[in-house]
Amino acid sequence: MREVAVLGIGQTKVEEQWDKSLRELAGEAVLAALNDAHLSAVDAIYVGNMMSGSANKQQHLGAYIADWVGMRYAEALRIEAACSSGAAAFRNAVIAVASGALDSAIAVGVEKMTDSPGHEITAELATAADADYEVDQGLSFVAINALIMRRYLYEFGWKKDDFAPFSINAHANAVYNPFARFHEPLDEKGYQRAPMVADPINLMDASPMGDGSAAAVIVPVERIYRQPGVPLIKVAGSAGCTDTIAVHDRRDPLWLMGAERSAHKAYEQAGIGPEDIDVFELHDAFSIMAALSLEAAGFAERGQGPRLALDGEIRPNGRIPIATRGGLKARGHPVGATGMYQIVEVVQQLRGECGETQVPGAKIGMAQNIGGSGSNIFAHIFKAE
Amino acid sequence: MREVAVLGIGQTKVEEQWDKSLRELAGEAVLAALNDAHLSAVDAIYVGNMMSGSANKQQHLGAYIADWVGMRYAEALRIEAACSSGAAAFRNAVIAVASGALDSAIAVGVEKMTDSPGHEITAELATAADADYEVDQGLSFVAINALIMRRYLYEFGWKKDDFAPFSINAHANAVYNPFARFHEPLDEKGYQRAPMVADPINLMDASPMGDGSAAAVIVPVERIYRQPGVPLIKVAGSAGCTDTIAVHDRRDPLWLMGAERSAHKAYEQAGIGPEDIDVFELHDAFSIMAALSLEAAGFAERGQGPRLALDGEIRPNGRIPIATRGGLKARGHPVGATGMYQIVEVVQQLRGECGETQVPGAKIGMAQNIGGSGSNIFAHIFKAE
Repeated sequence: MREVAVLGIGQTKVEEQWDKSLRELAGEAVLAALNDAHLSAVDAIYVGNMMSGSANKQQHLGAYIADWVGMRYAEALRIEAACSSGAAAFRNAVIAVASGALDSAIAVGVEKMTDSPGHEITAELATAADADYEVDQGLSFVAINALIMRRYLYEFGWKKDDFAPFSINAHANAVYNPFARFHEPLDEKGYQRAPMVADPINLMDASPMGDGSAAAVIVPVERIYRQPGVPLIKVAGSAGCTDTIAVHDRRDPLWLMGAERSAHKAYEQAGIGPEDIDVFELHDAFSIMAALSLEAAGFAERGQGPRLALDGEIRPNGRIPIATRGGLKARGHPVGATGMYQIVEVVQQLRGECGETQVPGAKIGMAQNIGGSGSNIFAHIFKAE
Repeated sequence: MREVAVLGIGQTKVEEQWDKSLRELAGEAVLAALNDAHLSAVDAIYVGNMMSGSANKQQHLGAYIADWVGMRYAEALRIEAACSSGAAAFRNAVIAVASGALDSAIAVGVEKMTDSPGHEITAELATAADADYEVDQGLSFVAINALIMRRYLYEFGWKKDDFAPFSINAHANAVYNPFARFHEPLDEKGYQRAPMVADPINLMDASPMGDGSAAAVIVPVERIYRQPGVPLIKVAGSAGCTDTIAVHDRRDPLWLMGAERSAHKAYEQAGIGPEDIDVFELHDAFSIMAALSLEAAGFAERGQGPRLALDGEIRPNGRIPIATRGGLKARGHPVGATGMYQIVEVVQQLRGECGETQVPGAKIGMAQNIGGSGSNIFAHIFKAE
């Protein structure tokens, strides 16, 4: 396989985008990424999206978006892996370009959730869980995560408030990200006062939905004209791994085996270990998921994820910065687009474009995108050269 | 890229499968394909599916099916390209194995449509068209095809009954396919008496929905242990091409540019022309689509597709046999699974396993899978060696 790199990135703000259709949102991100790459078209478009069929009454997003952005006759399709749809699309675009089957591709994640009423979105999010053995028993998606968090508190002796630093860090960083949904800092008191959603998950443990799109242009390294002073952002590792779809089928519901395996495959491909990662955009859909991801990816011992947060090590100047642009918690979580936002943000860090929340000297970054309750996890490692 | 081959195939009967869940259907096809390939597992599962989110309240089919078939920790995801989801999944599995990113993969198409009432399925099928500019104006999917057929009759001077041989051939062949939905032959009178659905498309021009799943195991040729007398089924060509999502945006609504381009890319890769194709499983969702596919893929001049059917050239012993196992019309059209049924059937032909409808001496076959009203088309060419 050829080496490939991200030549251009684009994104829209995450918010309630009442004035834009699904195709306008995706088009905005795609055209921004093409513009950033100084290209007018690519061979193929890989769309990551979870719920357009129900939320927007529009499937077939490959043809729909290729047509809209003026790439008639390009190859195009949609990839769905619940909330990991974005990274799944990116991975398949990377493989296609690395293989030589295509000479260039765009991966674009897009989700427009606010077209539908909230209870419909809750039902739609639950389609990421096991319809027969979880959802039909009355579990919503947040309820599944609440069960995991409650068990985690019991098992490892943490208090709920020990998770506050995850949300506080995310909100602090989002203030400086113009594409983030929230620009309001959060303090300990604000966290404690947040209304409960599904005990022990309160509103400040949970990421907000939103409308948004993010995209990246992928080309072979051999085709890139290097400009002095402009870093080349190589895709150094790419892997995916599933786990049981229902959480109760796992031997250990507090360990993200999909995260461990995909991260370690990606480390191996990149020839590095977790100690080499300068910035880690993880999937903090709920604060408990941030803790579990840090552990499974090798940054903390089992049960010790919150320690990193309490010690400030997850801040931009800490040992393992996470949610540097706000994360799912404060940038927002337009589900099928999230994986692409994470990748775009890692690229921004490696290019040194993050201003107030720039990780000093970031050269290697990882994005980890989770679908379902840890049932499908994709890891991507990028290196700036 | 490495050469890849189809080592195993599996399929379920297409019918109303009330007694099986979505995962049981997919599992049946996957396990049959693995068994046929003498393998117990593969590296990844690519699921082609269009409407499980609405029809079955279950998305995230990658993890869902990998878990069910005992391939925990395999890589898995779902690909959606409307009715071309099956072939889109196959193409991406082929690229991943050919690239060396994976050493083996299964592509499985699955659709369980009869869980939902008919009017919901009609609405769901319409999500393959342009929601804003076609569906919101009152067009259903069959209505769009009726407009195309009406224009075709007007433009080229055919009578509606000239399309009867497409449906008659499909039903005649399905009689001998145990996996087909219908086993009732059709004659000219039966065609003429069929109730009108959307003038000029009657019930015998339209393919039936159904529940079903079909799968294929893909491995690199270099890893196959050749057994004397067992043909090796190589993937000789693979391509995809989109067109405008709305039919009214095309310069020529009677020409499937996506079919022409994808077929010709695949011919080029295989080093052949249309005259070398022994069997052609095309996408006869409506009989008009069979005519347009024959023309765009190079088997008939523009406007002359029905001539091949009237002359009997589409039968198993004709010049270009189509729908040899019943096609979408009589095998049935479980939308996201259809592309994989076509591929499985071409493999059966090249292996010489088709009994009464075997194409004599078939060595090269093509499958062409259409999403939307010609807005996304995938072509695959297979060679028996």
